Amino acid sequence: METVFAKNLADTAGVSAAIVRKDFSVLNIYGQKKGGYQIPDLMERIGTILGKTDKLEHIIIVGCGRIGKALMHYNGFEQDGIKIIAGFDSDPTVYNDTTHPVPVYPLNRIDEIVKGSEVKVAIITVPDSASADIFQRLLAAGITGVLNFSPITLKPMIKDDGTAIIVHNVNIALELEQIFYEMRYPKV
Amino acid sequence: METVFAKNLADTAGVSAAIVRKDFSVLNIYGQKKGGYQIPDLMERIGTILGKTDKLEHIIIVGCGRIGKALMHYNGFEQDGIKIIAGFDSDPTVYNDTTHPVPVYPLNRIDEIVKGSEVKVAIITVPDSASADIFQRLLAAGITGVLNFSPITLKPMIKDDGTAIIVHNVNIALELEQIFYEMRYPKV
Repeated sequence: METVFAKNLADTAGVSAAIVRKDFSVLNIYGQKKGGYQIPDLMERIGTILGKTDKLEHIIIVGCGRIGKALMHYNGFEQDGIKIIAGFDSDPTVYNDTTHPVPVYPLNRIDEIVKGSEVKVAIITVPDSASADIFQRLLAAGITGVLNFSPITLKPMIKDDGTAIIVHNVNIALELEQIFYEMRYPKV
Repeated sequence: METVFAKNLADTAGVSAAIVRKDFSVLNIYGQKKGGYQIPDLMERIGTILGKTDKLEHIIIVGCGRIGKALMHYNGFEQDGIKIIAGFDSDPTVYNDTTHPVPVYPLNRIDEIVKGSEVKVAIITVPDSASADIFQRLLAAGITGVLNFSPITLKPMIKDDGTAIIVHNVNIALELEQIFYEMRYPKV
């Protein structure tokens, strides 16, 4: 049985081994003295705590330009339990093209397909000008989690019916600007 | 002259108008009572504080697969003062292809081109297996800021000569997992 030591996990996470042992003990996970943690057992325990299941989590992607297409073709999501089941685009040359790895539909079918498939999470990769409108359409269709790549920041919110809308924004230009800023003003 | 009120900025940033006024006053930026802040003046003052210049900040991109290509073609960086000046890839069919929007070179020219162009920031969009090696090569060539899209987390560090290496990691699968996690365990 493969094992891992608190020290190994600590090095990878950039914390101390004592922190790893303490955090695991809070979760009722205990290793064996000098034997470390058994990896399959550890992964199953953590998976259960995080709510992982064997079935893939379905998501959709709205905006099938270069970034959207790159994500549709990326085959690293499935090992993390995530599967893109459909794309949406405003451009007929995109949604009439049948060579995509997943079906791509026109925007006016968002409501029907989201409701029909019970998908809850969407990636937004549309241009700035369209992102606020797309966000509203997705919420109306029942999407409650959004990963937004458009440069317009979308905000988490609570819908009138009490549903929490989770939003993560990834702004690539802003990440680069922050890197330049940190290089100019080192924290040390 | 176009003006903006603390209230407008506060709404956009999701804070209170009092916070905006207080933060600006720390930076010696004062608006006019009932007149708000003059936008061109405000942008220039903030730009100066952030170290912005008129010249574009040059960056390179290592890994010209689908994501790398999408970033090379993205034309929103220049408005944020950022310009991709070159790409690098291990695949001859990629670096011998002359249709890219910027020149693409083989990996063994990283050192020469980084040193020759004095570029300091790189985007890494290579597969997991290559990212640690590419990171080391970039640091050896003089890169001090990295935006990493590979799923292997790279760590900020201080080089032996005391140079701080700034690293931002963007892990798309992890962002999606976190969204699912937050949907399962709402904070409210």
